[in-house]
Amino acid sequence: MPKRNAFYAQSGGVTAVINASACGVIETARKHRSQIGKVYAGRNGIIGALQEDLIDTSKESAAAIHGLLTTPAGAFGSCRHKLKSLQENPAEYERLLEVFKAHNIGYFFYNGGGDSADTCLKVSQLGQATGYPLQAIHIPKTIDNDLPLTDNCPGFGSVAKYIAISTREAAMDVASMCETSTKVFILEVMGRHAGWIAAASGLAATQKGDAPHIILFPEIAFDRDTFMAKVQRTVKRHGYCVIVASEGAQYKDGTFLAESGLKDAFGHSQLGGLAPQLAQMIKLEFGYKYHWAVADYLQRSARHIASQTDVDQAYAVGEAAVTFALRGDNAIMPCIVRGKGKRYSWSIGEASLEDVANREKKMPRNYISRDGFGITDAANAYLTPLSAGEAYPGYRKGLPNYVRLKNISVPRKLKTRSNCSDEPYITTNFSRLGQDFACCYLYTAPRLNLATNPHEFEVKPCIAIVSLIDGAATPGMDCAQRKFFCRQHIIVL
Amino acid sequence: MPKRNAFYAQSGGVTAVINASACGVIETARKHRSQIGKVYAGRNGIIGALQEDLIDTSKESAAAIHGLLTTPAGAFGSCRHKLKSLQENPAEYERLLEVFKAHNIGYFFYNGGGDSADTCLKVSQLGQATGYPLQAIHIPKTIDNDLPLTDNCPGFGSVAKYIAISTREAAMDVASMCETSTKVFILEVMGRHAGWIAAASGLAATQKGDAPHIILFPEIAFDRDTFMAKVQRTVKRHGYCVIVASEGAQYKDGTFLAESGLKDAFGHSQLGGLAPQLAQMIKLEFGYKYHWAVADYLQRSARHIASQTDVDQAYAVGEAAVTFALRGDNAIMPCIVRGKGKRYSWSIGEASLEDVANREKKMPRNYISRDGFGITDAANAYLTPLSAGEAYPGYRKGLPNYVRLKNISVPRKLKTRSNCSDEPYITTNFSRLGQDFACCYLYTAPRLNLATNPHEFEVKPCIAIVSLIDGAATPGMDCAQRKFFCRQHIIVL
Repeated sequence: MPKRNAFYAQSGGVTAVINASACGVIETARKHRSQIGKVYAGRNGIIGALQEDLIDTSKESAAAIHGLLTTPAGAFGSCRHKLKSLQENPAEYERLLEVFKAHNIGYFFYNGGGDSADTCLKVSQLGQATGYPLQAIHIPKTIDNDLPLTDNCPGFGSVAKYIAISTREAAMDVASMCETSTKVFILEVMGRHAGWIAAASGLAATQKGDAPHIILFPEIAFDRDTFMAKVQRTVKRHGYCVIVASEGAQYKDGTFLAESGLKDAFGHSQLGGLAPQLAQMIKLEFGYKYHWAVADYLQRSARHIASQTDVDQAYAVGEAAVTFALRGDNAIMPCIVRGKGKRYSWSIGEASLEDVANREKKMPRNYISRDGFGITDAANAYLTPLSAGEAYPGYRKGLPNYVRLKNISVPRKLKTRSNCSDEPYITTNFSRLGQDFACCYLYTAPRLNLATNPHEFEVKPCIAIVSLIDGAATPGMDCAQRKFFCRQHIIVL
Repeated sequence: MPKRNAFYAQSGGVTAVINASACGVIETARKHRSQIGKVYAGRNGIIGALQEDLIDTSKESAAAIHGLLTTPAGAFGSCRHKLKSLQENPAEYERLLEVFKAHNIGYFFYNGGGDSADTCLKVSQLGQATGYPLQAIHIPKTIDNDLPLTDNCPGFGSVAKYIAISTREAAMDVASMCETSTKVFILEVMGRHAGWIAAASGLAATQKGDAPHIILFPEIAFDRDTFMAKVQRTVKRHGYCVIVASEGAQYKDGTFLAESGLKDAFGHSQLGGLAPQLAQMIKLEFGYKYHWAVADYLQRSARHIASQTDVDQAYAVGEAAVTFALRGDNAIMPCIVRGKGKRYSWSIGEASLEDVANREKKMPRNYISRDGFGITDAANAYLTPLSAGEAYPGYRKGLPNYVRLKNISVPRKLKTRSNCSDEPYITTNFSRLGQDFACCYLYTAPRLNLATNPHEFEVKPCIAIVSLIDGAATPGMDCAQRKFFCRQHIIVL
């Protein structure tokens, strides 16, 4: 087969080590120049492919690419965009194919979580359906650690390490001063549907009575009375209480705790997240002085304290993706297989995307203590090696010396700048959508607090021309359905 | 003079490196066994002295004491308790003297910020007034960096490093995804009266357009319109906007931004801090998707990424305190003197406590950019060396291997357990106040949000017996004034 190019894209929420996977892909591809031409990266993920906005990674030096190993976030940009099925939205797939053909792309490496595994599978089906030779390999990444078939997900180990360390450190602070000051400290962590990240805080404890004293998992229905009793008991016994709460903590009926807050005059939900909610709840009942922290993006970008295991595995799945492609695989995902010995070991295995897509791995019940507020020895044994080892980046003037790529665009070959389909590219930025088209639709009021639940919003049929650069809307203009509109239809406010 | 013991206490908010100062004190004292007997530490700071609750540091191994160099928070406990003047509350000073005499204490090392410098000065005056030979040396510590006469304060450099790194990392995350996701990210940092910590975030930027795009200082009056215009301009130009806000950000009239929030049905202030306030303000105006983080205790306990300069200086001021004591000094504070050369250097100088106590060092105006939203080259030059160098702790199983001292009590020698005075020790915990006495008074509703402004509450005359273990009150019992009460007066609910 003649030499073909590769396309690599980052998808969904970025992590401290997703660039390590990019590094694995690009460095491995460069070792096989006789088989793989250039590696093009999608600018802002799959949107880059749809918009024919490709980055030529061959313009980057070996040192810059190697620097990705120690650089957090998405070096080429990422996005949240899930392709619908081939039947529902063929235009988008046709566009992808058009771009891939134009740039002689035969390998599609998609680096993301569950949704992107699904997209990757569909792209492989596209190849088969149209007879276009395309190998689609998914590279696992998610801090949520919820992909099936792989022992764990690159990105998670580093968040786990960050949260465990932060919990230990903040707890020591509180313990120092609880005599006269803060008695209750709450750390809110990510994890909307699965409690893996919250669980990792449990690693901070090494003996009975150590913090965290209470972990709130989305998997365990929140019961106010049991929780309050445990808080009080803990303060009485130890003088203070450290709580680590998953943003997805919820009542038995599925209502999120973060939802149950104050509203302003306009009926908007209160501003704070879950942590201040819990703090207030405790304050009103017991009067304990409290502090709270919300780690938010700090936790998933904390490359300065990434886990060595995590970095190694992130690189390895990127490397394996290329190896799999070279041996002719398609619709596959390299995964991490834990060795059976007592001492932790891992190797790279493989999983069919048919089995990966749209399945979620929850915390097993036996990882959560009987009272629902802690982790078990089994969880500890699972989590410990994932956060082990310190993969420090280089420093310059006291700060990590993260690389900044040149990200030079591949010259466009197509005349069409975008496809004007029924399904807009989810974007809130006109300027990046090219000269001719822009997407205009209205986000509805968030179902939940956007601050803590950024992925939970509804996109309603377009009822206004919205300048999402400004965020301001001109209401009353009925644009029928969500669509792309030509520039002339856009009123920039 | 016969060999006398030393007393060491930690005061106020703890830091990532206050234990490094403790290490400097204890290791240096151990080198001069012929002159200094034992080093006793106050359990929970000065309260330990008042309650004759002393820790015998000689029971700790050399390895454990050396481990303090890499261990955050207060190894002996700290407290917030400011002694009144000798005239206003002689009982408390008499009690201190009683305890010092009982344990042959001739050296008083007090490790804290501005308030504790004041206390330290008063204790030295006590010695002089009563003819009891006591040398009081203050050891500077404060993340707020607001002590006068020293170039900087131990504790600050490590927070500066943590905030600069966190800003850089989170900003890279936001930049990766702003095309389709979060456009505005807000990080709330400590610093109620001075913007030093917020300023440190400015180190994250190395070229024009880099985050943070906006820093909010307490020193610069917040103007909504100017701020909003800058947010919008930044998003238009760079696609995203990163804001670092000092918790002390305030309007021209002195109202804190954090104060201007929602109230619940009971009139309590809304739960969130400043960051969610700003986020909502921006969201309502522009519709930008946002995220926010509140670092809270994470920032001041982050020993895992402490600055080497900071650790070195924290140790050095502890060491110098002992050296000063041995040469006979009193009412003095070792301070950090910056060398005049282009390359950063520092040495230990000294300042009289008369000149230190109750003076606050604000950010100079020429450290803040003209528009009030950034730092200048002068600030950068000042800050950079303070956060330089990585003083990594040792690790075990993926987590920092922080020491845990035995903290063995010195046998009590006095019959009185506490002094039943008009001025209660500020505490919310009965059990630690000894067997016979407890403090009972009522905290009033916080003037400000306790979450962000933990130090701002009023203590009103006692109007109820309050079990602050439970936080529940038995109202209607008039206890006249704030006092200590015998156990029989306390109703434990």
